[in-house]
Amino acid sequence: MKHDKVMNVAKKRGFLWSSFEIYAGVAGFYDYGPLGAILKNSIINKWKNFYIVKEGFYEIESPTVMPEEVLKASGHVDNFTDPMTECKECLEVYRADHIIEEMINRDVEGLSNEELTQIISEEKILCPRCGNHLTRVWNYNLMFQTLIGAKGKKTGYMRPETAQGIFIPFKRLLRFFRGKLPFGVVQVGKAYRNEISPRQGVIRLREFTQAEAEIFVNPEDKTHEKFDEIKGKMLKLYSGEVQLAEGEPVEISAGDALDEGIVSSQILIYQLYIAQKFLREIGIPDEVIRFRQHLPTEMAHYAIDCWDVEVYTERYGWVEIIGIADRTDFDLKSHTEHSNEDLRVFIEYDEPKQIKKLAIKPNMSKFGPSFKGDAPKILKVLENIDAKGVKKSIENDKMFNLQIEDNTFELLPEHVNFVEIEEVVRGEKIFPHVIEPSYGLDRIVFSVLLHTFTEDEENEREYFKLPKDIAPVEVSVFPLLNKEQLREEALKIKNDLREKGFIAEFDASGTIGRRYARSDEIGVPYAITVDHDSIDDNKVTIRNRDNLKQKRILISDIAGILDSLLKSRLEFDDIN
Amino acid sequence: MKHDKVMNVAKKRGFLWSSFEIYAGVAGFYDYGPLGAILKNSIINKWKNFYIVKEGFYEIESPTVMPEEVLKASGHVDNFTDPMTECKECLEVYRADHIIEEMINRDVEGLSNEELTQIISEEKILCPRCGNHLTRVWNYNLMFQTLIGAKGKKTGYMRPETAQGIFIPFKRLLRFFRGKLPFGVVQVGKAYRNEISPRQGVIRLREFTQAEAEIFVNPEDKTHEKFDEIKGKMLKLYSGEVQLAEGEPVEISAGDALDEGIVSSQILIYQLYIAQKFLREIGIPDEVIRFRQHLPTEMAHYAIDCWDVEVYTERYGWVEIIGIADRTDFDLKSHTEHSNEDLRVFIEYDEPKQIKKLAIKPNMSKFGPSFKGDAPKILKVLENIDAKGVKKSIENDKMFNLQIEDNTFELLPEHVNFVEIEEVVRGEKIFPHVIEPSYGLDRIVFSVLLHTFTEDEENEREYFKLPKDIAPVEVSVFPLLNKEQLREEALKIKNDLREKGFIAEFDASGTIGRRYARSDEIGVPYAITVDHDSIDDNKVTIRNRDNLKQKRILISDIAGILDSLLKSRLEFDDIN
Repeated sequence: MKHDKVMNVAKKRGFLWSSFEIYAGVAGFYDYGPLGAILKNSIINKWKNFYIVKEGFYEIESPTVMPEEVLKASGHVDNFTDPMTECKECLEVYRADHIIEEMINRDVEGLSNEELTQIISEEKILCPRCGNHLTRVWNYNLMFQTLIGAKGKKTGYMRPETAQGIFIPFKRLLRFFRGKLPFGVVQVGKAYRNEISPRQGVIRLREFTQAEAEIFVNPEDKTHEKFDEIKGKMLKLYSGEVQLAEGEPVEISAGDALDEGIVSSQILIYQLYIAQKFLREIGIPDEVIRFRQHLPTEMAHYAIDCWDVEVYTERYGWVEIIGIADRTDFDLKSHTEHSNEDLRVFIEYDEPKQIKKLAIKPNMSKFGPSFKGDAPKILKVLENIDAKGVKKSIENDKMFNLQIEDNTFELLPEHVNFVEIEEVVRGEKIFPHVIEPSYGLDRIVFSVLLHTFTEDEENEREYFKLPKDIAPVEVSVFPLLNKEQLREEALKIKNDLREKGFIAEFDASGTIGRRYARSDEIGVPYAITVDHDSIDDNKVTIRNRDNLKQKRILISDIAGILDSLLKSRLEFDDIN
Repeated sequence: MKHDKVMNVAKKRGFLWSSFEIYAGVAGFYDYGPLGAILKNSIINKWKNFYIVKEGFYEIESPTVMPEEVLKASGHVDNFTDPMTECKECLEVYRADHIIEEMINRDVEGLSNEELTQIISEEKILCPRCGNHLTRVWNYNLMFQTLIGAKGKKTGYMRPETAQGIFIPFKRLLRFFRGKLPFGVVQVGKAYRNEISPRQGVIRLREFTQAEAEIFVNPEDKTHEKFDEIKGKMLKLYSGEVQLAEGEPVEISAGDALDEGIVSSQILIYQLYIAQKFLREIGIPDEVIRFRQHLPTEMAHYAIDCWDVEVYTERYGWVEIIGIADRTDFDLKSHTEHSNEDLRVFIEYDEPKQIKKLAIKPNMSKFGPSFKGDAPKILKVLENIDAKGVKKSIENDKMFNLQIEDNTFELLPEHVNFVEIEEVVRGEKIFPHVIEPSYGLDRIVFSVLLHTFTEDEENEREYFKLPKDIAPVEVSVFPLLNKEQLREEALKIKNDLREKGFIAEFDASGTIGRRYARSDEIGVPYAITVDHDSIDDNKVTIRNRDNLKQKRILISDIAGILDSLLKSRLEFDDIN
């Protein structure tokens, strides 16, 4: 199986290792080895180049430990759960939906715990380990819990997503962007999910890296300024409707996807396009990508449209590696309610509006005697209250209970009159909607390894055909033979390239063929070989990993040529 | 106070914010805002350029959640503690050493809990909040604890340092480096410390970012190949000896520091030098840096020499921002004992050695009858056992108890003879020593803000004079006046620079003077202004933040000139 081959090479050469191996390991944790860490960082840098440099978003960094209030407001304390069941005999735990899918191959997405319990009972699903009965299904919260501070009274959690860290300081962010929508803020960092029983390698990690962008837009305007430029681009969309009709994904242009109402907004389609472009540039070809819309049963309660970017994998089938959602105003609204901080944005009208409005006119001769010292406070509250509601209550119930902090004041018909007034309004306060592309970086690194792994039978080699700008090592430097003079020259070239900022590696062990093979295997795009002639003519051979072509270049030109090749300003064939 | 001014600007302009503000905040957590995050990342990138590109170390990334076994072996479960005391009345908690230092200004570094308890009692130190008595002092563990997995039986902790994640996969790392010492591995990432009562802003965080390098060396060879190049470099050393004699730090060359035995090895001094060079390049001048050696009382139990790089701060005095330690073989040895995995390195001798060695020669005629089926197993163990120890026991006690798994076998004089044999040994297995530079990135970012903040009275401005290669925004683009034609041209220039990879910002609000001031304040090194002439001559004005000089350049040359300026390939005065 190609999967195993890829993972073996990845382990052997230092890309990915199971964590804590010498302590027998812990499921759901992986180390990025020396080559994996550079690869992952190069992919992150490219992502930042897309979202920060090109799109003009800004990055922030917020803590991974969060107090409970935040995650109560976001809904994670109550809803970030998986259905769990346990063996009554051996006490092994299982994800209820997964065990049903595995045992009787039935899709149970979106079913309630009661329904899952019933299926387990009716279908006689037993513990796969010991064959005994399973318990009722209950909700297990997936957050890692901890306690903040020495008094041990403040519950905290490891964040389940980086997004919440962007919503919390929204007021400060809005000020940074001078109060104007739209704007985008990104965060790249760790997120945590204490999986019940992770069994899928890097696909299901308990600690993973997300790159998320939260794009705050006016709900009345989900257009995108660059949409015209991309409306002819083709996307492979697998809409909810087609899924329900058991159809196949459809190749369609961005413009048509909008016109036909398949995707809900320009800005959402633009994000699909950017995602595809990004994946293509890091070596995941269009052929193994599709965009799958969430079905109404699987969509998060806060979202109105949500697309997964899925990559085909030999072992796990189609795997979500990016989620692109319209989260609406759910988060900002919820944090406003829970924190009592107004997270709305003032949107100025094009023209000020003259509006008619019902206002409360207090009858001061009755007001003072009834409320005494509380009167000023009550008057202040009445200025901003919804007058219609008060009027209705006074008319229907002959009274209105006004709650101010812990006190209730009884407003009677004699206290107030209602008048219609005219007001000039410059604009209004609204909750922005949030468009969120959310990238799962570990799954993306895995997909890159999987889909760049090349079995080149003609040249009897297997290697990661990594795009040259994300390859962990940029150039290998070899002496043709392991002789002092050649070694020294090759080492000098390697050191000089390091000084100039290149990740260059020197290798002198084994035959030159073996060294090329090792260099190719980890995806080094170029190799430089010093031979006997080099000492006389100051030239070396540069070799292209992909087509094995070789050119002879001056030692003094190496850095310049390499820089141009890596930045695609120069084609290998054009070296002269 | 300059400190407050710096922190105010940092907050107002989006560098640093207290976290979770809308939920009343949680002490010990900070957000990096849009400018702070770029600044921090630029500093990290520069650090990686020093350690990964130039020094040739490799980075890895390991989980922040760690199982208990790892931290038991590293000593953190038992020793990563602070002395704590609590008010008997109001239950407020305090760090015992800090409260004594604050209340009676006495240095209690290194004292035991009993001694601290006694001081509190003798000096009548009471709760600063309510004035009541404090409890006995006990050890409080500073790790954030959690549970891994759904069964809730596996204790985990948020890692207290990134270093341990490098020691765990040491065998794989050694293989990556083909079994040869020395080699260096770095990790940049979050670490956690659940402080009892953090009250010093970004100086004492509960979640912080470390950049650590673990350099594995042969304990017999702590030289550094580049030491000759740096032995004339001056360092301001505050040795333990001088501290105890209440002297002042001494300016001394790297070479003399070694010769006089002030620093214990070349490789340690080389790391001090690199640290100083790094800090200088990110804007922290030599004048506010000193290297302070740990006193024997404060040195970690595993270290043999340890130096803090300290920066002077107006508010907190001298603050440690980097620690450079010789950790010896403590960690690898301890993980070997706890995991039963051999983390030693085979060091080949220059020449194979002929050595004489005592060996056990079993007396087979007695062996079989005594031990029967266990005999082969026992023989195998005797091949590798320390023969001297067995001989001594047999001679003194007339027997030796051999423990194999759960069984004990009694070896009597009749079972064994001892002979001297000659053996050729190619090398030996040793535990490498570890040299560790450990950078506290949050304190470093804070120090950069503090020491680059410039009050320029002559030009009536205050700004972060950030080195141009770490400034968050690289160039501002302004229309001289807020007129359509100039705006459009300026926007086009800004967008073009973004496409070419520059962090460029457009600003058209307020007077040009106000815009220069805003741009200077956040440290933008260059500003480009489009005026009426630009439309005719295709030229714009480029302005240098530091000396306010201006030059007129072609629009088509902007990107090239900017790139050269930012990379210091071109001086502003040489633009023509």
